[in-house]
Amino acid sequence: MKNVSVIGATGYTGGELLRYLLRHPGVRVSHATSERSAGQKVSVLHTDLAGRLDLTLVKNDPDKISKDSGLVFLCLPHAESAAWAKKYLDRGVKVIDLSADLRLASVKSYEKWYKTTHPHPELLKKAVYGLPELYRAKIKGAKLVANPGCYSTTSILTALPLVKKGWARKGSIVIDAKSGVSGAGRKIESRYLFCEAHENFLAYAVTGHRHLPEIEQELGQSVTFVPHLLPVNRGILATVYAKLSKKISAKELHAAYAEFYKGEAFVKVLDEGKFPELKSVQHTNYCHIGVGLDPKGDTAVLVGVTDNLGKGAAGQALQNMNLVLGFKEGTGLE
Amino acid sequence: MKNVSVIGATGYTGGELLRYLLRHPGVRVSHATSERSAGQKVSVLHTDLAGRLDLTLVKNDPDKISKDSGLVFLCLPHAESAAWAKKYLDRGVKVIDLSADLRLASVKSYEKWYKTTHPHPELLKKAVYGLPELYRAKIKGAKLVANPGCYSTTSILTALPLVKKGWARKGSIVIDAKSGVSGAGRKIESRYLFCEAHENFLAYAVTGHRHLPEIEQELGQSVTFVPHLLPVNRGILATVYAKLSKKISAKELHAAYAEFYKGEAFVKVLDEGKFPELKSVQHTNYCHIGVGLDPKGDTAVLVGVTDNLGKGAAGQALQNMNLVLGFKEGTGLE
Amino acid sequence: MKNVSVIGATGYTGGELLRYLLRHPGVRVSHATSERSAGQKVSVLHTDLAGRLDLTLVKNDPDKISKDSGLVFLCLPHAESAAWAKKYLDRGVKVIDLSADLRLASVKSYEKWYKTTHPHPELLKKAVYGLPELYRAKIKGAKLVANPGCYSTTSILTALPLVKKGWARKGSIVIDAKSGVSGAGRKIESRYLFCEAHENFLAYAVTGHRHLPEIEQELGQSVTFVPHLLPVNRGILATVYAKLSKKISAKELHAAYAEFYKGEAFVKVLDEGKFPELKSVQHTNYCHIGVGLDPKGDTAVLVGVTDNLGKGAAGQALQNMNLVLGFKEGTGLE
Amino acid sequence: MKNVSVIGATGYTGGELLRYLLRHPGVRVSHATSERSAGQKVSVLHTDLAGRLDLTLVKNDPDKISKDSGLVFLCLPHAESAAWAKKYLDRGVKVIDLSADLRLASVKSYEKWYKTTHPHPELLKKAVYGLPELYRAKIKGAKLVANPGCYSTTSILTALPLVKKGWARKGSIVIDAKSGVSGAGRKIESRYLFCEAHENFLAYAVTGHRHLPEIEQELGQSVTFVPHLLPVNRGILATVYAKLSKKISAKELHAAYAEFYKGEAFVKVLDEGKFPELKSVQHTNYCHIGVGLDPKGDTAVLVGVTDNLGKGAAGQALQNMNLVLGFKEGTGLE
Repeated sequence: MKNVSVIGATGYTGGELLRYLLRHPGVRVSHATSERSAGQKVSVLHTDLAGRLDLTLVKNDPDKISKDSGLVFLCLPHAESAAWAKKYLDRGVKVIDLSADLRLASVKSYEKWYKTTHPHPELLKKAVYGLPELYRAKIKGAKLVANPGCYSTTSILTALPLVKKGWARKGSIVIDAKSGVSGAGRKIESRYLFCEAHENFLAYAVTGHRHLPEIEQELGQSVTFVPHLLPVNRGILATVYAKLSKKISAKELHAAYAEFYKGEAFVKVLDEGKFPELKSVQHTNYCHIGVGLDPKGDTAVLVGVTDNLGKGAAGQALQNMNLVLGFKEGTGLE
Repeated sequence: MKNVSVIGATGYTGGELLRYLLRHPGVRVSHATSERSAGQKVSVLHTDLAGRLDLTLVKNDPDKISKDSGLVFLCLPHAESAAWAKKYLDRGVKVIDLSADLRLASVKSYEKWYKTTHPHPELLKKAVYGLPELYRAKIKGAKLVANPGCYSTTSILTALPLVKKGWARKGSIVIDAKSGVSGAGRKIESRYLFCEAHENFLAYAVTGHRHLPEIEQELGQSVTFVPHLLPVNRGILATVYAKLSKKISAKELHAAYAEFYKGEAFVKVLDEGKFPELKSVQHTNYCHIGVGLDPKGDTAVLVGVTDNLGKGAAGQALQNMNLVLGFKEGTGLE
Repeated sequence: MKNVSVIGATGYTGGELLRYLLRHPGVRVSHATSERSAGQKVSVLHTDLAGRLDLTLVKNDPDKISKDSGLVFLCLPHAESAAWAKKYLDRGVKVIDLSADLRLASVKSYEKWYKTTHPHPELLKKAVYGLPELYRAKIKGAKLVANPGCYSTTSILTALPLVKKGWARKGSIVIDAKSGVSGAGRKIESRYLFCEAHENFLAYAVTGHRHLPEIEQELGQSVTFVPHLLPVNRGILATVYAKLSKKISAKELHAAYAEFYKGEAFVKVLDEGKFPELKSVQHTNYCHIGVGLDPKGDTAVLVGVTDNLGKGAAGQALQNMNLVLGFKEGTGLE
Repeated sequence: MKNVSVIGATGYTGGELLRYLLRHPGVRVSHATSERSAGQKVSVLHTDLAGRLDLTLVKNDPDKISKDSGLVFLCLPHAESAAWAKKYLDRGVKVIDLSADLRLASVKSYEKWYKTTHPHPELLKKAVYGLPELYRAKIKGAKLVANPGCYSTTSILTALPLVKKGWARKGSIVIDAKSGVSGAGRKIESRYLFCEAHENFLAYAVTGHRHLPEIEQELGQSVTFVPHLLPVNRGILATVYAKLSKKISAKELHAAYAEFYKGEAFVKVLDEGKFPELKSVQHTNYCHIGVGLDPKGDTAVLVGVTDNLGKGAAGQALQNMNLVLGFKEGTGLE
């Protein structure tokens, strides 16, 4: 039984992570932290855990927590997280960081999009981008994993096989992404009120969203990316459009996707002609992808779905933990 | 007081039309028809009309109905509607057809997309496409108006100014559209069940949707169009992407849109940097449009919203009726 | 054309009131106020009003506003509202107060439930309880109307005929009420976040809710009242249970209700055996009521619905304004 | 590894049961049946199971299925289910019946409420009512378990401690219950369409619901029971009101509930003053209960929640299976 801790456990991602960890047969949660709610039971904030996880929230104290935690998950805001990652790494604790602080290889890009100085640029080289389907081998030996963003995971997994084949014309990729409200975290802001989001729908960050550089970094190609706010609790659907650089059939396109993800437990390419829906992946770590061509045959239309709290955050963090700690990759996730 | 009738009054569009007609000071609803529910009160099917519209549903009988109806609205399925349009026109009654039967100028295109022989191809030449912002003058003198589809209205209004300016690179337009469930009508099918649509989201008709030819006909340009099913009752949001054929600034783009719709009562171009949301137009006949450029500046991103039952169906039908019958265009709609 | 103003126009009730006033042919909105958003266009906060109501928010200044307002609507928090009512009354302006400050005849009860000293107890005697179905004659001559709460309106209208008949056994009335989230106003609190309220449901204020004394005051009988939070934007449904004090049939019960509300434009008693639903009254000023007996025949079950922003707030305020200013009672409401 | 089969696997309950069985370490699903969809993959109907349960639906054939199934779950409509129960029992297979056919001890009551002749009245004596908190010992040795209804489970667990104490005045119990739409099964009927149920709420079966006799049978007392249709996918909340037969304090009431459910893994009595919400129990087999007194102190208000597909159906069926087959009661459920 290995000991892990969740730093920043009161948000939606922290809660989901605790739920995943509870089901994992090989780990025990030593600590869950919160600056504001320290002293309260975890189940006061995540009421479904009543009687299932008897843990009192504590403040984030690396000296104490590192004593009985072999690995910590950081569910902290960007610009705060890297500093804590440093402290835990210095104390010999492995770190899976769910913030945006360590995902971009370029400090410049980070500072442009997050409008802040990076506290520990030296960590960027040590961090492995935590998308197991791409970096499995590196993650296995990693001490520091930068867990990808929810929009990024879905967009990258959906677009990548086409890009890797060289079939997407440069500059032609459009990613129209739609996310459930929990993607914004537990922020208490007017736009996330029930009466504002329910029976409503909108595009936001049209002229530039922070997940864009992460997507472009992994695809190695520029894209147009526009996120939208869906009136659902969970789930992301990304519709990816790309002009084809050569003539291919729907069948070939499908075969390429099926081949690319052959053997991947958590990415399912649906049968030809089928497209995915959110409800197939909610509360899971799966990504479903459907592929097709538009009626003129010159544009690929690729649709991918994940749970933004699952494969888009906590589920993927657990998958990464399994790789880092030497468990079977799917433990606690199937 | 002019007499009008609603043929096919039990669906969502028929109901909404009755609501709009109730508020119109210059018309009276003579008849509302239903084959299946004839003999029942309208308010049994539209319970909000209890005590407000005391009308019993009758069967669709052009001989009788034409006696006290100067104009009829046809809210009937495609492939059925054109035949009824013919009968009413033959009896001297003006027709606003909300079905798809008379929207496409090309019989061939109709028969390809609707997979049926057109019952009255000769009517296609007489029908005016009922988008007042484009065809106001023609609609005023029309006997037969083909009311546009909900996806089409939103997509066309959102993309048209850019296209008319010649700023959209040929073949580059992508329309990612999202519609509320009432867009599908009152169909009793598994996919429209609450438990299937709620807390869910999906793309459909990815490889070809019937509103596509209508959009291409009016834009005069090929587009990639993918519709999605939103878990809301009403509203359509279309996100339109187009590669620019020349370098323009966001300011120029905005100015072009503002200019194009200057004086239009029902199309509002939002302030620069603002993008619309469904709730601003639900239960209204308005279309709101926001315009911008993506961060690289080579792609226009245009976002338009309407109520699929308002400007996308019944509201627009009333607007057309106002033009046809000589009322002020906005009567009963503001 | 009469001039009215809306004091506190940025909340959900204020917005709905502006929408109703826009449709009213006999009034003009002189001013709409907001302390926090003064200087901004009304349509920045109520985006659906863009291009329909060109008004800039101002601070609440009775000296200025009373110059061109014959009547003001106060959409302010309780404990603040009464003081402003006083100021406007002193300047000869009629007041419709949508807060709770002037609804209870007993200062003691007010101070117990609202846990504050009443700023102007002397106004309680001048205020008329603004339920037109009960106090129409008094409202007509009133200078100060206390617009009832949303739970109260629905509960009172639903239970009253039974109580007036003397058929409800003392102490047996249970009111299980369910309200949409807008009933709580535009409060930015955790419990009203989309992810907290959507796909969720709960009882609150189980051991005592502030609308209880108002309901008991008008029914003249003690009741057990428990409110619940429905995951809808608008609408209240109250299920009222009462042990019968004498044996009556379902038919007699129905007849009594039909008789009680005969001639009332905004209260519809449904046909025997029919029960109401929220969607029949959303966006309207109507109340629908269904009545029945439970299978044993000793308990009346009465179900009433209103729109909490309509008959439960802004719609009723307009109905009261019509009475106060001498318009036809239903003007702008049908 | 024990073999079990699911008879009627395409509905919401059947799907949920497959999900629970997948996670259970001691059982294997031999067969899943459907008359209409035989020959199709299970994952065509439950798309989340793609790649997780590779099973083809077969017709319900007791001769074949009994060969490799020690136990079957019947997820069939009432009036059909009992006949199949008989066939499986005759072939030595244990049966957990999720229909209503075997829940009522009285044939007469069954025939009155279900308006059909009971096909196998002799089975009523053999069937154990599958509420483990009440009948654990009997269930352990049972061959035939009648799994309770969702409304019944929630109502009984919430009211029972009060009733057993003798504190509920006879004839005074009111159960106001609210259920998510999946409680109605996957029925394709107008009232369950998204546009009918979303942003809506209503009471139904006001004058008598089929779960009423089941509730009264277990409580041993008559109740008034009114169900409502909540716009959520899953979850039931029951608000139970009872006049107290003797004066007790809120503290005593809470203590009685805590004592009653002491040691029960799946029923949590919340801390004094706390009331439950649906989201705490969705996707689980838990029941949460909150207890209080109304402000006058003469009425107990008890609020219970379950997931209608969890503790209200499939979860409880698994709990019963664990007892019947000798597994630890909570296996696969925590």
